[in-house]
Amino acid sequence: MKELVAINGEIFNPSEAKISVFDRGFLYGDGIYEVVRSYGRSLFGLEPHTNRLFNSADRLGINIGFSKREMMDEITRIYNAADRDDAYVRIVITRGEGPITLDPNAAPKPNIVILVKDIPPMDPKMYQEGIDLRIPSILRNSKKTVDPNVKSGNYLNNIMALAEAKQNGAHDAVMLNKDGHVTEGTTSNIYMVLNGGVVTPPDRADILLGITRMYLKELCQENNIAWEERFFTADEMKAADEVFATGSVKEVIPVRSIDGEKIGDGGPGLVTKNLMALYKGLVKKHCQ
Amino acid sequence: MKELVAINGEIFNPSEAKISVFDRGFLYGDGIYEVVRSYGRSLFGLEPHTNRLFNSADRLGINIGFSKREMMDEITRIYNAADRDDAYVRIVITRGEGPITLDPNAAPKPNIVILVKDIPPMDPKMYQEGIDLRIPSILRNSKKTVDPNVKSGNYLNNIMALAEAKQNGAHDAVMLNKDGHVTEGTTSNIYMVLNGGVVTPPDRADILLGITRMYLKELCQENNIAWEERFFTADEMKAADEVFATGSVKEVIPVRSIDGEKIGDGGPGLVTKNLMALYKGLVKKHCQ
Repeated sequence: MKELVAINGEIFNPSEAKISVFDRGFLYGDGIYEVVRSYGRSLFGLEPHTNRLFNSADRLGINIGFSKREMMDEITRIYNAADRDDAYVRIVITRGEGPITLDPNAAPKPNIVILVKDIPPMDPKMYQEGIDLRIPSILRNSKKTVDPNVKSGNYLNNIMALAEAKQNGAHDAVMLNKDGHVTEGTTSNIYMVLNGGVVTPPDRADILLGITRMYLKELCQENNIAWEERFFTADEMKAADEVFATGSVKEVIPVRSIDGEKIGDGGPGLVTKNLMALYKGLVKKHCQ
Repeated sequence: MKELVAINGEIFNPSEAKISVFDRGFLYGDGIYEVVRSYGRSLFGLEPHTNRLFNSADRLGINIGFSKREMMDEITRIYNAADRDDAYVRIVITRGEGPITLDPNAAPKPNIVILVKDIPPMDPKMYQEGIDLRIPSILRNSKKTVDPNVKSGNYLNNIMALAEAKQNGAHDAVMLNKDGHVTEGTTSNIYMVLNGGVVTPPDRADILLGITRMYLKELCQENNIAWEERFFTADEMKAADEVFATGSVKEVIPVRSIDGEKIGDGGPGLVTKNLMALYKGLVKKHCQ
Protein backbone atom coordinates (compact mmCIF):
# COMPACT_ATOMS: atom_id res chain seq x y z
CA MET A 1 0.00 0.00 0.00
CA LYS A 2 2.16 2.80 -1.33
CA GLU A 3 1.99 6.36 -0.01
CA LEU A 4 3.43 9.27 -1.95
CA VAL A 5 3.38 13.04 -2.31
CA ALA A 6 3.50 15.00 -5.56
CA ILE A 7 4.72 18.59 -5.48
CA ASN A 8 4.00 20.43 -8.72
CA GLY A 9 3.89 17.09 -10.53
CA GLU A 10 7.13 15.67 -9.12
CA ILE A 11 6.69 12.58 -6.95
CA PHE A 12 8.39 12.14 -3.56
CA ASN A 13 8.35 9.71 -0.69
CA PRO A 14 6.23 11.30 2.06
CA SER A 15 9.24 11.72 4.36
CA GLU A 16 11.08 13.68 1.67
CA ALA A 17 8.19 15.87 0.51
CA LYS A 18 9.11 19.41 1.49
CA ILE A 19 7.96 22.90 0.63
CA SER A 20 9.64 26.29 0.94
CA VAL A 21 9.10 28.13 4.23
CA PHE A 22 8.21 31.11 2.00
CA ASP A 23 5.16 29.25 0.72
CA ARG A 24 2.08 31.29 1.64
CA GLY A 25 0.32 28.14 2.80
CA PHE A 26 2.98 27.74 5.47
CA LEU A 27 3.17 31.45 6.39
CA TYR A 28 -0.52 32.43 6.30
CA GLY A 29 -2.62 29.36 5.56
CA ASP A 30 -3.16 31.05 2.17
CA GLY A 31 -4.34 28.04 0.24
CA ILE A 32 -7.19 25.65 -0.41
CA TYR A 33 -7.66 21.89 -0.31
CA GLU A 34 -9.90 18.94 -1.03
CA VAL A 35 -9.96 15.34 0.13
CA VAL A 36 -11.06 12.59 -2.25
CA ARG A 37 -11.34 9.00 -1.20
CA SER A 38 -10.87 6.05 -3.52
CA TYR A 39 -12.87 2.85 -3.23
CA GLY A 40 -10.96 0.08 -4.95
CA ARG A 41 -9.39 2.00 -7.82
CA SER A 42 -12.19 4.56 -8.21
CA LEU A 43 -11.78 8.14 -6.99
CA PHE A 44 -15.31 8.71 -5.71
CA GLY A 45 -16.81 12.12 -6.42
CA LEU A 46 -13.71 13.45 -8.17
CA GLU A 47 -15.74 15.84 -10.32
CA PRO A 48 -17.75 17.54 -7.55
CA HIS A 49 -14.64 17.75 -5.38
CA THR A 50 -12.77 19.38 -8.25
CA ASN A 51 -15.65 21.78 -8.81
CA ARG A 52 -15.53 22.77 -5.14
CA LEU A 53 -11.73 23.16 -5.31
CA PHE A 54 -12.17 25.62 -8.16
CA ASN A 55 -14.91 27.44 -6.24
CA SER A 56 -12.56 27.83 -3.25
CA ALA A 57 -9.78 29.05 -5.57
CA ASP A 58 -12.13 31.52 -7.20
CA ARG A 59 -13.28 32.89 -3.86
CA LEU A 60 -9.67 33.50 -2.77
CA GLY A 61 -8.52 34.72 -6.17
CA ILE A 62 -6.05 31.85 -6.61
CA ASN A 63 -5.34 30.99 -10.24
CA ILE A 64 -4.78 27.22 -10.29
CA GLY A 65 -3.33 27.32 -13.80
CA PHE A 66 -5.16 24.16 -14.85
CA SER A 67 -8.62 23.63 -16.31
CA LYS A 68 -10.94 21.44 -14.23
CA ARG A 69 -10.40 18.61 -16.70
CA GLU A 70 -6.61 18.97 -16.48
CA MET A 71 -6.81 19.06 -12.68
CA MET A 72 -8.86 15.85 -12.58
CA ASP A 73 -6.38 14.22 -14.98
CA GLU A 74 -3.46 15.31 -12.79
CA ILE A 75 -5.08 13.99 -9.59
CA THR A 76 -5.79 10.70 -11.37
CA ARG A 77 -2.24 10.51 -12.73
CA ILE A 78 -0.73 10.96 -9.25
CA TYR A 79 -3.19 8.52 -7.72
CA ASN A 80 -2.36 5.94 -10.40
CA ALA A 81 1.35 6.40 -9.68
CA ALA A 82 0.69 5.10 -6.16
CA ASP A 83 -0.76 1.94 -7.78
CA ARG A 84 -3.08 1.06 -4.90
CA ASP A 85 -6.66 0.54 -3.78
CA ASP A 86 -8.57 2.46 -1.11
CA ALA A 87 -6.61 5.65 -0.65
CA TYR A 88 -7.01 9.04 1.01
CA VAL A 89 -6.07 11.69 -1.57
CA ARG A 90 -5.55 15.25 -0.34
CA ILE A 91 -5.08 18.02 -2.87
CA VAL A 92 -3.52 21.17 -1.39
CA ILE A 93 -3.06 24.27 -3.53
CA THR A 94 -1.38 27.32 -2.04
CA ARG A 95 -0.97 30.75 -3.57
CA GLY A 96 2.74 29.93 -3.88
CA GLU A 97 5.94 31.63 -2.81
CA GLY A 98 7.13 35.20 -2.87
CA PRO A 99 8.42 38.01 -0.69
CA ILE A 100 6.92 38.18 2.80
CA THR A 101 3.82 40.38 2.50
CA LEU A 102 0.12 39.70 2.90
CA ASP A 103 -0.45 41.12 -0.60
CA PRO A 104 -1.74 38.14 -2.63
CA ASN A 105 -0.24 39.62 -5.81
CA ALA A 106 3.25 38.88 -4.48
CA ALA A 107 3.09 35.18 -5.39
CA PRO A 108 3.07 34.57 -9.14
CA LYS A 109 2.48 30.80 -9.24
CA PRO A 110 0.57 28.39 -6.99
CA ASN A 111 2.12 25.30 -5.43
CA ILE A 112 0.11 22.14 -6.07
CA VAL A 113 0.64 19.31 -3.59
CA ILE A 114 -1.17 15.98 -3.89
CA LEU A 115 -0.83 13.50 -1.03
CA VAL A 116 -1.84 9.84 -1.49
CA LYS A 117 -2.13 8.08 1.86
CA ASP A 118 -3.82 5.26 3.69
CA ILE A 119 -7.35 6.05 4.77
CA PRO A 120 -7.16 6.94 8.46
CA PRO A 121 -8.44 3.96 10.48
CA MET A 122 -11.99 4.42 11.76
CA ASP A 123 -13.06 2.41 14.80
CA PRO A 124 -16.01 0.16 13.71
CA LYS A 125 -17.54 0.74 17.17
CA MET A 126 -18.14 4.36 16.20
CA TYR A 127 -20.49 3.14 13.45
CA GLN A 128 -22.13 0.47 15.59
CA GLU A 129 -22.65 2.63 18.69
CA GLY A 130 -22.38 6.21 17.45
CA ILE A 131 -19.99 9.00 18.38
CA ASP A 132 -20.06 11.56 21.19
CA LEU A 133 -20.14 15.23 20.21
CA ARG A 134 -19.48 18.33 22.24
CA ILE A 135 -20.58 21.90 21.59
CA PRO A 136 -17.47 24.00 22.20
CA SER A 137 -17.37 27.56 23.52
CA ILE A 138 -15.59 28.70 20.34
CA LEU A 139 -18.04 29.77 17.60
CA ARG A 140 -17.90 28.93 13.91
CA ASN A 141 -16.37 31.57 11.65
CA SER A 142 -18.98 33.82 10.10
CA LYS A 143 -19.40 33.93 6.31
CA LYS A 144 -18.64 37.66 6.59
CA THR A 145 -15.11 36.98 7.89
CA VAL A 146 -13.59 33.72 6.60
CA ASP A 147 -16.39 31.85 4.84
CA PRO A 148 -16.54 28.20 5.95
CA ASN A 149 -17.67 27.37 2.40
CA VAL A 150 -14.13 28.11 1.23
CA LYS A 151 -12.17 24.94 2.02
CA SER A 152 -8.99 26.78 2.89
CA GLY A 153 -5.71 26.37 4.75
CA ASN A 154 -7.11 28.35 7.71
CA TYR A 155 -8.34 25.62 10.04
CA LEU A 156 -7.56 26.96 13.51
CA ASN A 157 -11.23 27.63 14.17
CA ASN A 158 -11.97 23.92 13.74
CA ILE A 159 -8.79 22.77 15.48
CA MET A 160 -9.59 24.78 18.61
CA ALA A 161 -13.14 23.44 18.59
CA LEU A 162 -11.91 19.86 18.24
CA ALA A 163 -9.31 20.36 20.98
CA GLU A 164 -12.05 21.51 23.35
CA ALA A 165 -14.24 18.53 22.42
CA LYS A 166 -11.38 16.06 22.93
CA GLN A 167 -10.52 17.60 26.31
CA ASN A 168 -14.09 16.79 27.30
CA GLY A 169 -13.83 13.21 26.13
CA ALA A 170 -15.89 13.63 22.94
CA HIS A 171 -14.98 12.39 19.46
CA ASP A 172 -15.74 15.67 17.68
CA ALA A 173 -17.23 19.12 18.11
CA VAL A 174 -20.36 20.53 16.55
CA MET A 175 -20.10 24.30 16.31
CA LEU A 176 -22.68 27.05 16.73
CA ASN A 177 -22.72 30.45 15.05
CA LYS A 178 -23.15 33.75 16.92
CA ASP A 179 -26.95 33.42 16.74
CA GLY A 180 -26.82 30.08 18.55
CA HIS A 181 -27.64 28.08 15.43
CA VAL A 182 -26.00 24.74 14.73
CA THR A 183 -23.54 24.92 11.82
CA GLU A 184 -21.34 21.83 11.32
CA GLY A 185 -18.76 19.48 12.79
CA THR A 186 -15.05 20.24 12.46
CA THR A 187 -14.77 18.07 9.33
CA SER A 188 -18.37 17.06 8.76
CA ASN A 189 -21.89 18.25 8.11
CA ILE A 190 -24.51 17.61 10.77
CA TYR A 191 -28.13 16.41 10.60
CA MET A 192 -30.99 15.60 12.91
CA VAL A 193 -33.88 13.24 12.25
CA LEU A 194 -37.38 14.40 13.22
CA ASN A 195 -40.46 12.29 12.50
CA GLY A 196 -38.51 10.17 10.02
CA GLY A 197 -37.27 13.17 8.00
CA VAL A 198 -33.80 14.70 7.77
CA VAL A 199 -33.14 18.30 8.88
CA THR A 200 -29.80 20.03 8.25
CA PRO A 201 -28.57 23.65 8.38
CA PRO A 202 -29.19 25.52 5.11
CA ASP A 203 -26.68 26.58 2.46
CA ARG A 204 -26.70 30.12 3.87
CA ALA A 205 -25.56 28.91 7.29
CA ASP A 206 -21.88 29.18 8.16
CA ILE A 207 -21.05 25.78 6.71
CA LEU A 208 -19.07 24.03 4.02
CA LEU A 209 -21.37 22.59 1.40
CA GLY A 210 -20.37 18.96 1.74
CA ILE A 211 -20.13 16.59 -1.19
CA THR A 212 -21.51 13.75 0.95
CA ARG A 213 -24.32 16.13 2.00
CA MET A 214 -25.11 16.66 -1.69
CA TYR A 215 -25.23 12.91 -2.37
CA LEU A 216 -27.33 12.37 0.75
CA LYS A 217 -29.88 14.93 -0.40
CA GLU A 218 -30.22 13.07 -3.69
CA LEU A 219 -30.60 9.75 -1.86
CA CYS A 220 -33.32 11.18 0.39
CA GLN A 221 -35.22 12.52 -2.59
CA GLU A 222 -34.96 9.22 -4.47
CA ASN A 223 -36.11 7.26 -1.41
CA ASN A 224 -38.96 9.54 -0.30
CA ILE A 225 -37.22 10.59 2.90
CA ALA A 226 -38.19 14.16 3.79
CA TRP A 227 -35.27 16.61 3.50
CA GLU A 228 -35.45 20.01 5.13
CA GLU A 229 -32.80 22.74 5.28
CA ARG A 230 -33.33 25.20 8.12
CA PHE A 231 -31.63 26.69 11.15
CA PHE A 232 -31.97 24.91 14.48
CA THR A 233 -30.53 25.27 17.97
CA ALA A 234 -28.41 22.92 20.04
CA ASP A 235 -31.38 22.23 22.32
CA GLU A 236 -33.55 21.22 19.39
CA MET A 237 -30.79 18.95 18.10
CA LYS A 238 -30.31 17.30 21.49
CA ALA A 239 -34.04 16.56 21.63
CA ALA A 240 -34.13 15.07 18.11
CA ASP A 241 -35.00 11.43 17.42
CA GLU A 242 -31.61 10.82 15.81
CA VAL A 243 -28.48 12.81 14.94
CA PHE A 244 -25.78 11.90 12.47
CA ALA A 245 -22.82 13.45 10.65
CA THR A 246 -21.34 13.02 7.18
CA GLY A 247 -17.99 13.50 5.50
CA SER A 248 -16.15 12.11 2.49
CA VAL A 249 -13.86 9.99 4.64
CA LYS A 250 -16.25 9.09 7.48
CA GLU A 251 -19.29 8.67 5.19
CA VAL A 252 -22.50 8.60 7.33
CA ILE A 253 -21.81 8.22 11.06
CA PRO A 254 -24.37 8.05 13.88
CA VAL A 255 -24.18 10.41 16.88
CA ARG A 256 -24.79 8.82 20.27
CA SER A 257 -24.61 11.85 22.54
CA ILE A 258 -24.12 15.61 22.55
CA ASP A 259 -22.59 17.27 25.64
CA GLY A 260 -23.13 13.98 27.44
CA GLU A 261 -26.87 13.98 26.71
CA LYS A 262 -28.10 10.83 25.02
CA ILE A 263 -29.74 11.25 21.60
CA GLY A 264 -32.92 9.19 21.15
CA ASP A 265 -32.36 5.81 22.79
CA GLY A 266 -28.57 6.28 22.56
CA GLY A 267 -27.92 3.97 19.64
CA PRO A 268 -27.98 4.51 15.86
CA GLY A 269 -31.57 5.17 14.78
CA LEU A 270 -33.46 3.52 11.96
CA VAL A 271 -33.25 6.48 9.55
CA THR A 272 -29.51 6.85 10.18
CA LYS A 273 -28.94 3.12 9.61
CA ASN A 274 -30.98 3.28 6.42
CA LEU A 275 -28.94 6.26 5.13
CA MET A 276 -25.66 4.53 6.05
CA ALA A 277 -26.73 1.58 3.89
CA LEU A 278 -28.08 3.75 1.07
CA TYR A 279 -24.79 5.70 0.95
CA LYS A 280 -22.77 2.48 0.82
CA GLY A 281 -25.01 1.37 -2.03
CA LEU A 282 -24.41 4.63 -3.89
CA VAL A 283 -20.64 4.26 -3.52
CA LYS A 284 -20.85 0.67 -4.74
CA LYS A 285 -22.85 1.73 -7.80
CA HIS A 286 -20.27 4.41 -8.69
CA CYS A 287 -17.13 2.44 -7.82
CA GLN A 288 -17.50 -1.08 -9.13
CA MET B 1 23.45 41.96 4.00
CA LYS B 2 23.00 38.27 4.63
CA GLU B 3 19.59 36.59 4.70
CA LEU B 4 19.11 33.20 6.27
CA VAL B 5 16.52 30.79 7.66
CA ALA B 6 16.93 28.55 10.70
CA ILE B 7 14.74 25.45 11.01
CA ASN B 8 14.87 23.92 14.50
CA GLY B 9 18.26 25.55 14.97
CA GLU B 10 19.85 24.46 11.70
CA ILE B 11 20.75 27.31 9.35
CA PHE B 12 19.89 27.31 5.63
CA ASN B 13 20.08 29.67 2.69
CA PRO B 14 16.55 31.02 2.17
CA SER B 15 16.19 29.21 -1.18
CA GLU B 16 17.00 25.89 0.49
CA ALA B 17 14.85 26.31 3.60
CA LYS B 18 12.09 23.74 3.34
CA ILE B 19 9.55 22.19 5.64
CA SER B 20 7.57 18.94 5.47
CA VAL B 21 4.20 19.14 3.69
CA PHE B 22 2.88 17.32 6.78
CA ASP B 23 3.72 20.34 8.93
CA ARG B 24 0.48 21.59 10.47
CA GLY B 25 1.42 25.16 9.64
CA PHE B 26 1.33 24.21 5.96
CA LEU B 27 -1.79 22.05 6.20
CA TYR B 28 -3.97 24.12 8.57
CA GLY B 29 -2.15 27.36 9.43
CA ASP B 30 -1.77 25.72 12.86
CA GLY B 31 1.03 27.91 14.18
CA ILE B 32 1.99 31.29 15.57
CA TYR B 33 4.49 33.98 14.67
CA GLU B 34 6.13 37.25 15.63
CA VAL B 35 8.12 39.83 13.71
CA VAL B 36 11.00 41.64 15.43
CA ARG B 37 12.95 44.38 13.71
CA SER B 38 16.57 45.18 14.44
CA TYR B 39 17.93 48.70 14.39
CA GLY B 40 21.67 48.53 13.92
CA ARG B 41 22.50 45.36 15.86
CA SER B 42 19.70 45.71 18.43
CA LEU B 43 16.57 43.57 18.27
CA PHE B 44 14.01 46.16 19.35
CA GLY B 45 11.31 44.95 21.72
CA LEU B 46 12.55 41.37 21.75
CA GLU B 47 11.16 40.77 25.24
CA PRO B 48 7.56 41.98 24.67
CA HIS B 49 7.48 40.19 21.31
CA THR B 50 8.63 36.98 23.00
CA ASN B 51 6.00 37.45 25.71
CA ARG B 52 3.33 37.82 23.05
CA LEU B 53 4.68 34.75 21.20
CA PHE B 54 4.25 32.73 24.38
CA ASN B 55 0.75 34.16 24.90
CA SER B 56 -0.22 33.04 21.38
CA ALA B 57 1.28 29.60 22.02
CA ASP B 58 -0.57 29.32 25.29
CA ARG B 59 -3.87 30.28 23.69
CA LEU B 60 -3.46 27.58 21.02
CA GLY B 61 -2.03 24.99 23.42
CA ILE B 62 1.31 24.83 21.59
CA ASN B 63 4.22 23.81 23.82
CA ILE B 64 7.22 25.71 22.47
CA GLY B 65 9.66 23.57 24.46
CA PHE B 66 11.82 26.58 25.38
CA SER B 67 11.60 29.02 28.27
CA LYS B 68 11.13 32.67 27.27
CA ARG B 69 14.79 33.33 28.12
CA GLU B 70 15.91 30.38 25.97
CA MET B 71 13.68 31.55 23.11
CA MET B 72 15.16 35.06 23.24
CA ASP B 73 18.66 33.57 23.31
CA GLU B 74 17.85 31.38 20.29
CA ILE B 75 16.40 34.29 18.29
CA THR B 76 19.50 36.35 19.14
CA ARG B 77 21.81 33.47 18.20
CA ILE B 78 20.20 33.07 14.78
CA TYR B 79 20.15 36.83 14.23
CA ASN B 80 23.83 37.04 15.13
CA ALA B 81 24.61 34.24 12.67
CA ALA B 82 23.37 36.55 9.90
CA ASP B 83 26.00 39.10 11.07
CA ARG B 84 24.12 42.14 9.82
CA ASP B 85 22.45 45.43 10.75
CA ASP B 86 18.80 46.41 10.26
CA ALA B 87 16.99 43.14 9.71
CA TYR B 88 13.45 41.80 9.61
CA VAL B 89 13.29 38.75 11.86
CA ARG B 90 10.23 36.52 11.65
CA ILE B 91 9.77 33.73 14.17
CA VAL B 92 7.29 31.07 13.04
CA ILE B 93 6.36 28.22 15.36
CA THR B 94 3.99 25.53 14.15
CA ARG B 95 2.50 22.67 16.10
CA GLY B 96 4.76 20.37 14.08
CA GLU B 97 4.24 17.28 11.96
CA GLY B 98 2.13 14.18 12.38
CA PRO B 99 -0.61 12.12 10.76
CA ILE B 100 -3.26 14.11 8.90
CA THR B 101 -5.95 14.93 11.46
CA LEU B 102 -7.15 18.19 12.97
CA ASP B 103 -6.51 16.73 16.45
CA PRO B 104 -3.75 18.92 17.89
CA ASN B 105 -2.47 16.02 20.00
CA ALA B 106 -1.27 14.30 16.82
CA ALA B 107 1.88 16.43 16.56
CA PRO B 108 4.37 15.73 19.34
CA LYS B 109 6.97 18.46 18.68
CA PRO B 110 6.71 22.01 17.26
CA ASN B 111 8.75 23.24 14.30
CA ILE B 112 10.59 26.47 15.02
CA VAL B 113 11.52 28.55 11.96
CA ILE B 114 13.40 31.85 12.24
CA LEU B 115 13.79 33.95 9.09
CA VAL B 116 16.31 36.81 8.98
CA LYS B 117 15.65 39.07 6.00
CA ASP B 118 16.02 42.58 4.66
CA ILE B 119 13.45 44.99 6.00
CA PRO B 120 10.83 45.36 3.23
CA PRO B 121 11.40 48.70 1.50
CA MET B 122 8.94 51.43 2.57
CA ASP B 123 8.32 54.31 0.19
CA PRO B 124 9.38 57.54 2.04
CA LYS B 125 6.46 59.29 0.33
CA MET B 126 4.09 57.22 2.45
CA TYR B 127 5.53 58.89 5.55
CA GLN B 128 5.65 62.37 4.01
CA GLU B 129 2.17 62.29 2.47
CA GLY B 130 0.31 59.54 4.33
CA ILE B 131 -1.26 56.33 3.08
CA ASP B 132 -4.71 55.61 1.65
CA LEU B 133 -6.91 53.12 3.49
CA ARG B 134 -10.02 51.29 2.45
CA ILE B 135 -12.73 49.72 4.56
CA PRO B 136 -13.35 46.31 2.97
CA SER B 137 -16.64 44.43 2.90
CA ILE B 138 -15.03 41.50 4.74
CA LEU B 139 -15.29 41.85 8.54
CA ARG B 140 -12.58 41.21 11.13
CA ASN B 141 -12.67 37.81 12.81
CA SER B 142 -14.51 37.88 16.12
CA LYS B 143 -12.67 37.04 19.35
CA LYS B 144 -15.25 34.28 19.76
CA THR B 145 -14.06 32.47 16.63
CA VAL B 146 -10.34 32.99 15.87
CA ASP B 147 -9.15 35.69 18.27
CA PRO B 148 -7.12 38.38 16.43
CA ASN B 149 -5.04 38.69 19.60
CA VAL B 150 -3.53 35.31 18.79
CA LYS B 151 -0.84 36.06 16.18
CA SER B 152 -1.38 32.85 14.27
CA GLY B 153 -0.77 31.24 10.91
CA ASN B 154 -4.40 31.88 9.91
CA TYR B 155 -4.18 35.14 7.97
CA LEU B 156 -6.75 34.72 5.20
CA ASN B 157 -9.10 37.20 6.90
CA ASN B 158 -6.44 39.91 6.59
CA ILE B 159 -5.26 38.78 3.14
CA MET B 160 -8.77 39.03 1.69
CA ALA B 161 -9.22 42.46 3.28
CA LEU B 162 -5.90 43.66 1.85
CA ALA B 163 -6.73 42.23 -1.58
CA GLU B 164 -9.96 44.21 -1.61
CA ALA B 165 -8.15 47.39 -0.53
CA LYS B 166 -5.47 46.95 -3.21
CA GLN B 167 -8.11 46.36 -5.89
CA ASN B 168 -9.49 49.75 -4.96
CA GLY B 169 -6.12 51.46 -5.18
CA ALA B 170 -5.52 51.77 -1.44
CA HIS B 171 -2.33 50.86 0.44
CA ASP B 172 -4.07 48.91 3.18
CA ALA B 173 -7.44 47.98 4.66
CA VAL B 174 -8.87 48.96 8.01
CA MET B 175 -11.40 46.38 9.13
CA LEU B 176 -14.68 46.69 10.99
CA ASN B 177 -16.26 44.13 13.31
CA LYS B 178 -19.88 42.94 13.04
CA ASP B 179 -21.08 45.88 15.15
CA GLY B 180 -19.58 48.38 12.71
CA HIS B 181 -16.73 49.31 15.03
CA VAL B 182 -13.24 49.97 13.73
CA THR B 183 -10.78 47.22 14.72
CA GLU B 184 -7.35 47.37 13.02
CA GLY B 185 -5.39 47.35 9.77
CA THR B 186 -4.28 44.07 8.23
CA THR B 187 -0.85 44.31 9.91
CA SER B 188 -1.24 47.43 12.04
CA ASN B 189 -3.20 49.07 14.84
CA ILE B 190 -5.24 52.15 14.00
CA TYR B 191 -5.72 55.49 15.78
CA MET B 192 -7.53 58.75 15.30
CA VAL B 193 -6.63 62.16 16.72
CA LEU B 194 -9.42 64.28 18.22
CA ASN B 195 -8.69 67.63 19.87
CA GLY B 196 -5.02 66.80 20.16
CA GLY B 197 -5.61 63.45 21.90
CA VAL B 198 -5.20 59.89 20.62
CA VAL B 199 -8.18 57.51 20.41
CA THR B 200 -7.76 53.82 19.57
CA PRO B 201 -9.99 50.70 19.82
CA PRO B 202 -9.83 49.07 23.26
CA ASP B 203 -8.13 45.83 24.27
CA ARG B 204 -11.48 44.06 24.21
CA ALA B 205 -12.05 44.95 20.54
CA ASP B 206 -11.24 42.34 17.92
CA ILE B 207 -7.59 43.41 17.62
CA LEU B 208 -4.05 42.26 18.14
CA LEU B 209 -2.48 44.09 21.07
CA GLY B 210 0.39 45.71 19.20
CA ILE B 211 3.84 46.14 20.72
CA THR B 212 4.18 49.51 18.97
CA ARG B 213 0.75 50.41 20.36
CA MET B 214 2.05 49.59 23.85
CA TYR B 215 5.12 51.81 23.38
CA LEU B 216 2.95 54.59 21.94
CA LYS B 217 0.69 54.54 24.96
CA GLU B 218 3.71 54.99 27.20
CA LEU B 219 4.99 57.84 25.02
CA CYS B 220 1.62 59.60 25.15
CA GLN B 221 1.49 59.30 28.94
CA GLU B 222 5.06 60.62 29.32
CA ASN B 223 4.34 63.54 26.99
CA ASN B 224 0.92 64.53 28.33
CA ILE B 225 -0.89 63.55 25.16
CA ALA B 226 -4.40 62.31 26.00
CA TRP B 227 -4.86 58.56 25.33
CA GLU B 228 -8.30 57.05 25.11
CA GLU B 229 -9.33 53.48 24.32
CA ARG B 230 -12.89 53.17 23.09
CA PHE B 231 -14.97 51.86 20.19
CA PHE B 232 -15.63 54.17 17.24
CA THR B 233 -17.23 53.89 13.82
CA ALA B 234 -15.78 54.38 10.37
CA ASP B 235 -17.71 57.65 10.01
CA GLU B 236 -16.25 59.03 13.21
CA MET B 237 -12.77 58.03 12.07
CA LYS B 238 -13.22 59.65 8.67
CA ALA B 239 -14.27 62.89 10.39
CA ALA B 240 -11.28 62.87 12.78
CA ASP B 241 -8.57 65.56 12.76
CA GLU B 242 -5.89 62.98 12.00
CA VAL B 243 -5.61 59.22 11.52
CA PHE B 244 -2.48 57.08 11.73
CA ALA B 245 -1.44 53.44 11.99
CA THR B 246 1.38 51.63 13.77
CA GLY B 247 3.30 48.40 13.40
CA SER B 248 6.70 47.04 14.36
CA VAL B 249 8.01 47.29 10.80
CA LYS B 250 6.14 50.40 9.61
CA GLU B 251 6.48 52.24 12.98
CA VAL B 252 4.07 55.24 13.02
CA ILE B 253 2.59 56.04 9.61
CA PRO B 254 0.13 58.83 8.74
CA VAL B 255 -3.15 58.10 6.95
CA ARG B 256 -4.12 60.50 4.17
CA SER B 257 -7.50 59.15 3.15
CA ILE B 258 -10.07 56.46 3.95
CA ASP B 259 -12.38 55.22 1.17
CA GLY B 260 -11.15 58.17 -0.90
CA GLU B 261 -12.25 60.69 1.73
CA LYS B 262 -9.51 63.06 2.83
CA ILE B 263 -8.62 63.00 6.54
CA GLY B 264 -8.16 66.50 8.04
CA ASP B 265 -6.34 68.63 5.48
CA GLY B 266 -5.04 65.51 3.72
CA GLY B 267 -1.46 65.61 5.01
CA PRO B 268 0.18 64.24 8.16
CA GLY B 269 -1.14 66.18 11.16
CA LEU B 270 0.85 67.74 13.96
CA VAL B 271 0.07 65.08 16.56
CA THR B 272 0.97 62.30 14.13
CA LYS B 273 4.25 64.00 13.21
CA ASN B 274 5.04 64.48 16.89
CA LEU B 275 4.39 60.78 17.62
CA MET B 276 6.49 59.71 14.61
CA ALA B 277 9.40 61.70 16.07
CA LEU B 278 8.80 60.52 19.63
CA TYR B 279 8.77 56.89 18.47
CA LYS B 280 12.02 57.35 16.55
CA GLY B 281 13.48 58.86 19.72
CA LEU B 282 12.35 55.87 21.76
CA VAL B 283 13.93 53.44 19.30
CA LYS B 284 17.16 55.46 19.36
CA LYS B 285 17.24 55.39 23.16
CA HIS B 286 16.78 51.60 23.20
CA CYS B 287 19.03 50.75 20.26
CA GLN B 288 22.20 52.80 20.51
